[in-house]
Amino acid sequence: MTFKLNPNNDQLSTEELQKLAEMRKRCARRILLSTSLAASGHPGGSLSSLDLLLVTYGIMSHKPTEPLWQERDRVVMSIGHISPGVYSVLSEYGYFTEEDFLTGFRRAGSGFPGHVEKIVPGVEWDTGNLGQGLSTGVGMAMALKLKGASRKVIVYMGDGDLQKGQAAEAMRFAHKYKLNNLMVIVDRNHLQICGSTEEVMPSNIRGLFASCGWNVELLDDGHDYNKVFKKLSAVYNGMSTNPELPTVIIANTIMGKGISFMENLAKYHGSPLKIDQLAQAFAELGVENDFDRWAKLRTRRVSTATLVANKVCYPKIEAGTAVVYDADKKTDCRSAYGTALYELAKANNIPGKAPKIVGISCDLEGSVKMGDFRKHMPEAFLECGIQEHHAAAMAGAISREEMAAFFSTFGVFAVSEVYNQNRLNDINHTNVKVVATHLGLDVGEDGPTHQGIDYIGLMRNYFNFQVFIPADPNQTDRVIRHVATSSGNHFVGMGRSKMGMVLTEDGTPFFGSDYSFTPGKGDWVRRGTAGTIISYGAVTPSVMEAWKQLQDEGISVSVLLMASIAPFDKQSVIEAVHNGGPLLTVEDHHVDTGVGAIVATILADEGLSCRFKRLGVTHYGSSGKPADLYAEQGLDAQGIVEAFKRLM
Amino acid sequence: MTFKLNPNNDQLSTEELQKLAEMRKRCARRILLSTSLAASGHPGGSLSSLDLLLVTYGIMSHKPTEPLWQERDRVVMSIGHISPGVYSVLSEYGYFTEEDFLTGFRRAGSGFPGHVEKIVPGVEWDTGNLGQGLSTGVGMAMALKLKGASRKVIVYMGDGDLQKGQAAEAMRFAHKYKLNNLMVIVDRNHLQICGSTEEVMPSNIRGLFASCGWNVELLDDGHDYNKVFKKLSAVYNGMSTNPELPTVIIANTIMGKGISFMENLAKYHGSPLKIDQLAQAFAELGVENDFDRWAKLRTRRVSTATLVANKVCYPKIEAGTAVVYDADKKTDCRSAYGTALYELAKANNIPGKAPKIVGISCDLEGSVKMGDFRKHMPEAFLECGIQEHHAAAMAGAISREEMAAFFSTFGVFAVSEVYNQNRLNDINHTNVKVVATHLGLDVGEDGPTHQGIDYIGLMRNYFNFQVFIPADPNQTDRVIRHVATSSGNHFVGMGRSKMGMVLTEDGTPFFGSDYSFTPGKGDWVRRGTAGTIISYGAVTPSVMEAWKQLQDEGISVSVLLMASIAPFDKQSVIEAVHNGGPLLTVEDHHVDTGVGAIVATILADEGLSCRFKRLGVTHYGSSGKPADLYAEQGLDAQGIVEAFKRLM
Repeated sequence: MTFKLNPNNDQLSTEELQKLAEMRKRCARRILLSTSLAASGHPGGSLSSLDLLLVTYGIMSHKPTEPLWQERDRVVMSIGHISPGVYSVLSEYGYFTEEDFLTGFRRAGSGFPGHVEKIVPGVEWDTGNLGQGLSTGVGMAMALKLKGASRKVIVYMGDGDLQKGQAAEAMRFAHKYKLNNLMVIVDRNHLQICGSTEEVMPSNIRGLFASCGWNVELLDDGHDYNKVFKKLSAVYNGMSTNPELPTVIIANTIMGKGISFMENLAKYHGSPLKIDQLAQAFAELGVENDFDRWAKLRTRRVSTATLVANKVCYPKIEAGTAVVYDADKKTDCRSAYGTALYELAKANNIPGKAPKIVGISCDLEGSVKMGDFRKHMPEAFLECGIQEHHAAAMAGAISREEMAAFFSTFGVFAVSEVYNQNRLNDINHTNVKVVATHLGLDVGEDGPTHQGIDYIGLMRNYFNFQVFIPADPNQTDRVIRHVATSSGNHFVGMGRSKMGMVLTEDGTPFFGSDYSFTPGKGDWVRRGTAGTIISYGAVTPSVMEAWKQLQDEGISVSVLLMASIAPFDKQSVIEAVHNGGPLLTVEDHHVDTGVGAIVATILADEGLSCRFKRLGVTHYGSSGKPADLYAEQGLDAQGIVEAFKRLM
Repeated sequence: MTFKLNPNNDQLSTEELQKLAEMRKRCARRILLSTSLAASGHPGGSLSSLDLLLVTYGIMSHKPTEPLWQERDRVVMSIGHISPGVYSVLSEYGYFTEEDFLTGFRRAGSGFPGHVEKIVPGVEWDTGNLGQGLSTGVGMAMALKLKGASRKVIVYMGDGDLQKGQAAEAMRFAHKYKLNNLMVIVDRNHLQICGSTEEVMPSNIRGLFASCGWNVELLDDGHDYNKVFKKLSAVYNGMSTNPELPTVIIANTIMGKGISFMENLAKYHGSPLKIDQLAQAFAELGVENDFDRWAKLRTRRVSTATLVANKVCYPKIEAGTAVVYDADKKTDCRSAYGTALYELAKANNIPGKAPKIVGISCDLEGSVKMGDFRKHMPEAFLECGIQEHHAAAMAGAISREEMAAFFSTFGVFAVSEVYNQNRLNDINHTNVKVVATHLGLDVGEDGPTHQGIDYIGLMRNYFNFQVFIPADPNQTDRVIRHVATSSGNHFVGMGRSKMGMVLTEDGTPFFGSDYSFTPGKGDWVRRGTAGTIISYGAVTPSVMEAWKQLQDEGISVSVLLMASIAPFDKQSVIEAVHNGGPLLTVEDHHVDTGVGAIVATILADEGLSCRFKRLGVTHYGSSGKPADLYAEQGLDAQGIVEAFKRLM
């Protein structure tokens, strides 16, 4: 029978106090044993958080036999390194056995990694990089609010963790959206790896939360069960100064609590006890020293029995009817995106019900064309201010609550600025749709800081993102519908400028009403005999113009557009080589890390050789009109024609 | 004669007031004219900052005829988009002519880009990405303190700008290091692109700065010259509540100030006036409407006459004597880095004088082995807490003040987390030495969030970084001395584990006392006939072991180690192909974006083909011992041997 505390009680009973003391002893033993067995890990913070954790899991709504029970409260460990404490407590509550944990901890392939991951029953989110967990919790709390669910989100943070600037961004967002279903517990042990927080980086945690409009509750002793219970229960029950706002409990704790020679020493943040110290600690705890027995058990093959498989959490979304732009229409892909998103919202976000599609932006609603989406259902649009780190991380969390999260801003901010936040989403198997507008030199006058020329170079380092760059507004419409209706992480990129449609040779839209987008399939928009130009995205009009100029000179080239960057259409590249003639790649992207590099890798992997040239961005662009910037780097029609002719 | 205000005066004279009013009118005209001419840009914030800017340049120490005069105060525009305001004021003060600015603004290749860049005389730093400028100013203020210079640093920030979390990191650092030579001026116009800051993202700017320990000064009217002068002069003169701490002046201003129909409208953040509106505005200002004349002048060829060339700001640093590790020594590259850095410090950081080398870390001093460096000269070591965004950006600014800035932390935090901060350093031609420890699966038990497997994939998107990954502690020593004594941005990466030295076939250190590191040159540590293994970094011991196993089986392969990733040794790859046999690349890095991809690109570019295989990281690593993680992904000796044999 799982231990349970009633948060409506005034205080703990003598029996409950006694049980908690027993649980603490068992958990402290596991924390020390697991880290000494692994000869690595974080015992100090695990012990400082332990009493808070034990009471939290006692109070909250959860079902250890059904970790993903819909009615559970969510716990997010922004301090992912206190995994020994978390696993100890979860095993105490019956999510798995002590043996599972102790034999598996920090062993390759096991279900008990060094930083908490959701392969562990009871863990909601993979964390490890500090400062991101509050954004995750905020995302969950926001999604629960949108769903009308009454559950709570509890985020554990550390005082070092709170030095990351992203935390302040998340605080402001939580205040703006009145996320009173969110409570943060700060394990304020005043120590971080290199010493006291006061020495390493003095921080006024109370002042920071207060300046962001939160309720701040102080807990003077995070190891006194009665005090912990009263404070956590009160906040859990919404009894904060302003019940409409989120609340932080700053709990004074002691690093290494309970082991005399570990207390208040920074070195135990990340150092396990040596064997002789462990014996001493176990003597203090009054528990048997069975280190050798466990060490022997850990020589057995790693068990994978407890591993929680990744569960797809994605809603059924209707694609609606494609919007087809006429042959003579000129518009930008951003507007096509905005229109498609609006149509998707009309088909799937039913007023009065929880939204299936959420839109997230950072003070660029107009530029990224989310205005109509917002108007259709204002509550489904989340304006984050200029806080991209928070926005990206939050988008991931929301997307795991059965919502498609569209996160849109300029390429530099959606990719380059938040690379590591997107990476954590990648690790967490989220369903984020990062739709970046304003990619490449096509950004124009805003200059090099705003010209993202690395979106492929960066995105290719993930394992769980599909990457698409449509060639025109028609293809944009179809790509957006595809990603909206498909689970998993997707990146869709586009430039800023208006463009004409890609047309067939007889002048009809190439991506017309009969076109549907298929990941991993390139589009042969022209078939010629003199060689192939491979391209995508914002330079497409230049490429089509180059095709025409070459055609006028009697040179018939193929044009292969690669909207699908990941997965990539290897077969079409091989086909292009077999068709004969040179291969020329053209892109508004760093010349060494984009599609030119992908094609080169295919050639090398396949042992193919041909005349081959990569055109792309070879130096930072200046501030000017896109056409001038393209001309500067040989990416205009003339530059492409000349490059192709040189290759022949 | 440049206009000058004496900050020691009690108030402005009638003449000064009149002059300021005239200057304002001319500048307001330029702001409107320049943006309408370019049909893009940011007039609104330029007008709200204008009066503050005019007084700032009146008070501060600077020489328009010598923009890089050593005794100047530094001004950093965290709000880089108010370039029309900045250029208008700089032209008013004589840095360049109005014609230079108006004919060049936002034209490709000109000296007047859309966001401020230091190609403009009088501009200290390229900005544009919001939230980074305070870190830049903090870096300059820190460097000036270390140099014992009495100059001030003045940072302009906006209220939207301050939503970025990085700003809070910079505030905490400035407070910790008591940077009372730093003053921030907040242009508090209460508007951002999408509306009022209160609607977009409510922020308590005063509370935020106060919670970070700053002096907060309020200026109720940022357009009243007397009030502006008094407040700015007082703070400039150190008359703050606590003169030991940095000070922020929060100035209430009006977006679009001075043009009746522009005032307090968010749309003018980023929208220029149309021609008819411009006529109306000029009528209000009482100035001639000469738009057509300027528009005609802008049809002429772009002038590059005012462009400021990048000036190398790097000290002369002594390399000292190489430390050579014996053939039987086993240590980690991190320790070799720490030792080399300590030796460099002893040779170049003379106690009592300003340091030439600054060390920067984020709560990981011990892990990155900066302890001895710190002990030698404590003030040259800057502990940033867990605030990597600030640390990376600050490192760039410090490095432009004639100091070599070594920034060290784990790979994930030094590269992935701060990709965009390093990018801004790249754009700014800084002299940062990013030395990342704990790269790759070699991180081990800390798991996927801590395993940086994208350092090459990311760094290759820059244009001004050289990238080196030494093979062993001996090579590490030499690489560190090389980067310390060379100007420009350098990245040096290494794993976590201890390793033996790379040896020649006769058992002596390959990178011994007669070795010196040369960028762009690979090391043929073995010469064989059966093909070539190309590798680098932490997998080197596995590769050398694989070489031995193959050798024992009678297969003689070459081993080519590529410590220099950028620039890369193309010739040696070509040589390897010509030598015959297959090419196998092996790396503790994402398989698609590292050295395997670089080699593939060389093969494709050169039209070479051979049997070729890339070994690398194909999925996120789990949490376990590096050897187990390598084995999981076929990167141990056995996996390498098998892969090579399959290729034959």
